Amino acid sequence: MAKDKKQPRPKAETPKGFRDYFGADVDERKAMLDRIAQVYHRYGFDALESAAVETVEALGKYLPDVDRPNEGVFAWQEADDETWLALRYDLTAPLARVYAQHRNDLPTPYRRYAMGPVWRNEKPGPGRFRQFYQCDADTVGSASMAADAEICAMLADTLEAVGIERGDYLIRVNNRKVLNGVLEVAGIAEDDTRAAVLRTIDKFDKVGEAGVRELLGKGRLDASGAYIDGVGLSDEQAGPVIAFLMAGDEVDRRLVAGLELAKDLPKGVKSHIQDARDARDPVVAKKLSVSTEAFATRNRMMLKYLSEVVENSSVGAEGVEELEQISGLLEAQGYGPDRIVIDPSVVRGLGYYTGPVFEAELTFEILDDKGRPRQFGSVAGGGRYDDLVKRFTGQAVPATGISIGVDRLLAALRAKGRAGVEARGPVVVTVMDRDRMADYQAMAGELRAAGIRAEVYLGNPKNFGNQLKYADKRGSPVAVIEGADEKARGVVQVKDLILGAQIAESATLEEWKERPSQVEVARGDLVKEVAKIIAAHGGDDG
Amino acid sequence: MAKDKKQPRPKAETPKGFRDYFGADVDERKAMLDRIAQVYHRYGFDALESAAVETVEALGKYLPDVDRPNEGVFAWQEADDETWLALRYDLTAPLARVYAQHRNDLPTPYRRYAMGPVWRNEKPGPGRFRQFYQCDADTVGSASMAADAEICAMLADTLEAVGIERGDYLIRVNNRKVLNGVLEVAGIAEDDTRAAVLRTIDKFDKVGEAGVRELLGKGRLDASGAYIDGVGLSDEQAGPVIAFLMAGDEVDRRLVAGLELAKDLPKGVKSHIQDARDARDPVVAKKLSVSTEAFATRNRMMLKYLSEVVENSSVGAEGVEELEQISGLLEAQGYGPDRIVIDPSVVRGLGYYTGPVFEAELTFEILDDKGRPRQFGSVAGGGRYDDLVKRFTGQAVPATGISIGVDRLLAALRAKGRAGVEARGPVVVTVMDRDRMADYQAMAGELRAAGIRAEVYLGNPKNFGNQLKYADKRGSPVAVIEGADEKARGVVQVKDLILGAQIAESATLEEWKERPSQVEVARGDLVKEVAKIIAAHGGDDG
Repeated sequence: MAKDKKQPRPKAETPKGFRDYFGADVDERKAMLDRIAQVYHRYGFDALESAAVETVEALGKYLPDVDRPNEGVFAWQEADDETWLALRYDLTAPLARVYAQHRNDLPTPYRRYAMGPVWRNEKPGPGRFRQFYQCDADTVGSASMAADAEICAMLADTLEAVGIERGDYLIRVNNRKVLNGVLEVAGIAEDDTRAAVLRTIDKFDKVGEAGVRELLGKGRLDASGAYIDGVGLSDEQAGPVIAFLMAGDEVDRRLVAGLELAKDLPKGVKSHIQDARDARDPVVAKKLSVSTEAFATRNRMMLKYLSEVVENSSVGAEGVEELEQISGLLEAQGYGPDRIVIDPSVVRGLGYYTGPVFEAELTFEILDDKGRPRQFGSVAGGGRYDDLVKRFTGQAVPATGISIGVDRLLAALRAKGRAGVEARGPVVVTVMDRDRMADYQAMAGELRAAGIRAEVYLGNPKNFGNQLKYADKRGSPVAVIEGADEKARGVVQVKDLILGAQIAESATLEEWKERPSQVEVARGDLVKEVAKIIAAHGGDDG
Repeated sequence: MAKDKKQPRPKAETPKGFRDYFGADVDERKAMLDRIAQVYHRYGFDALESAAVETVEALGKYLPDVDRPNEGVFAWQEADDETWLALRYDLTAPLARVYAQHRNDLPTPYRRYAMGPVWRNEKPGPGRFRQFYQCDADTVGSASMAADAEICAMLADTLEAVGIERGDYLIRVNNRKVLNGVLEVAGIAEDDTRAAVLRTIDKFDKVGEAGVRELLGKGRLDASGAYIDGVGLSDEQAGPVIAFLMAGDEVDRRLVAGLELAKDLPKGVKSHIQDARDARDPVVAKKLSVSTEAFATRNRMMLKYLSEVVENSSVGAEGVEELEQISGLLEAQGYGPDRIVIDPSVVRGLGYYTGPVFEAELTFEILDDKGRPRQFGSVAGGGRYDDLVKRFTGQAVPATGISIGVDRLLAALRAKGRAGVEARGPVVVTVMDRDRMADYQAMAGELRAAGIRAEVYLGNPKNFGNQLKYADKRGSPVAVIEGADEKARGVVQVKDLILGAQIAESATLEEWKERPSQVEVARGDLVKEVAKIIAAHGGDDG
């Protein structure tokens, strides 16, 4: 072996948990974000783009006094003054920093939106990445419930603007204060116990009423036979929590029983929702959309029921009052419960919410990995957080906002076939004679000038088959061919690659004869012919 | 002092060298990048978005075997396997990694564009930031000069598409091989000496022919009186370098002397360029744009002259031949020397270029910080780099591309008043009666539905003056007012804030009377009236 060994080649690998996006994937996300930005802009929200990097101190959550504070975030230390810097893990923490820093120059209230990648230093897994997009809109400096209502209305408009039809989504609204009121009424004061109760509430969808009752009490044998320790509440303490959780069912029961509303309910609705839980099922709700107006009353019934549950808690009553305001404002603007509903089961993970919380759910079904239908689920969430800016300034600044899960919403649009970008390759002008590159480039130039995406083949032109394979890989609609013979006769061959592929796959010889996939046209008619073929296949996105 | 001191508040500060972009700044950059992407797309380039994070190993340049390899990049170590990760410092290194990793799935040649932030761990300074945007287009896998010519043509189209008029920019093309040929002819073989010569060539614009001659030789007293050591070349070695540097002057001299072209030169041109250097001055060239066709010959004369300078070097001859191909292809497509010129003075800093190099310069004058006119200068650069992918695969892959300095180009558009985004705030619906928020939101909703950017004031409505101040800060064109009185009479007040500001600033009382800045209209005419006012001020961007 020689002494000075060659350095090994670096591996060409995306770092673990990161990924590359190609072509149409980038275009589709961009098109969706553009549509979202347009709605936000029209609502008076201004764009904000802060840097990817913040001081760890400003990000909060992670403290600079440990040796390497990069749990959860990607962090490193500045060489000169040992400040810890980190990549932002969301768009809310930077907003709090920006607002505290620039508050004298910004309008109050400050409506802003932000779109961009955030980073999480977590163990990557299937579908779990360490860099992903977020898309947020927040109003800072307004304590008015009108700000929360506006966020919900804007979210509904946004979902429709990107291509989610009304009826295919539902925005659920709850209020942390109502939850706190329930905990107060139940006599649960310790933070740890409160957190355990919230975690249990979040499991309601999985384990149902009986399961939650067990988990709030002594504990529960789960399906695998393992014993899950309970929170240890007494039956009396668990009571208000269960009553709160069953709000949906209870309201639906009252609705169905016709105690309050029998005469408003359209014919047939009653039989549809004999199973009270049906009424909370958005798929059923969608089927019942004819009865939207009758169901508007359901929100009011829900609020009444909740006020009963928390009647001995002032914070709880405040929460119900806030929900009433939001609900009233939204209904006045025509955002009825077919789009936005009061739903006590919405908890939202983040600890910093202090009032209303929102969650947007897509209610249509898709097939999961195993081909089973399931509801698409949550694509956006948010709420009011009045304490974030206080960290910096000492003064509480009311704020409320929403964050859209960009990748999930995009996946939903794709599942619905509404990602809206023509993923078509360019027209490929093939090279028959490498000394006539200028001629071929002139053709591409003419096509582009007519708004048609086009390129000249720039690989080794020797093997013509490779050029057509290339065009195929590019998803090209058309290949243009001009050999010496064509040149001499003043013509070009225009090959319809989409039709060609269709013929190759399915057509009978008969059809093939009637619609040849390659035509010869005068050189001067090149652009006209290509445009015709592309139009026949559904337009161009050049 | 109490024992458990409160934790100090974090500072609300952008980390050193980073910045926040607000509103119109974000919109303008986005609008520009959208226009660029449209041109790239039409040329057949596909979007690529790789992650911000790469392994230090893949980035190259910085090696993982030192203790903290974060010189120049922001780097940190993975917790589990101690891999060093870093933020990308440009978009080319990630492209090389992506191409090496995905080459079997990508078309060859692969045309891609990428836009996004890059990060440099450098000392920040005035106008020098540690995160900034780049916007690249590259063709990987084609050795053809047609790929380089295409990049240049596309760059010209791009500059015009974003709003730089023809005549306001010039794309200069050189070839590293010609430079290497000159060094070969001069008998300069050592890498260090070659690098020193290249650095000296770069100073030509500053110190002129005599200065370069001194710096290539023994050295030179600079303006401050300090002595700058020279490269130490003999006069014979310096000769070819000087001849190369003077190519522009020499060609112009020949041109002016009419040795080859006298009869082609339009009347008056000769007198314009009595000072030969004038002819290289793009401002003069622009004035002479009538003579574009005659000047086309200048490229050919330049190529002939360069081939004389490097005639004993095969690599030099190869470089001239490549320039001839590029020049020929571009001229055939109508990209004459009024847009793209051969210019031997283009060196380009980066060491990895192996063939043609490009630089786009804006030739119009702007005023510098001290109010003196100066040419705007370079906004894009690039070239051919055939060795980047080889690091990963061992196989050389030809590649060529261009990188646009996004911030500089945007600054140029702003200087020209062509950033093209209406930086107008939303219509503000003021709140006279806080119990009627739903009414005000209905107005905003109607305006939005008509495509007009609008919002309801969400601050404390008590002080009406604050609401108008807010509207002013937002740059609102119109404020809408509906108090109890208006409500009762079924009308609204519509206040033209732009006109109001004009009146406040300059108008006489007479004018004010004729055009009141506030009108009362029927509630039903709100949208019509607002639209009319906005149209009168030059349209809406809602």
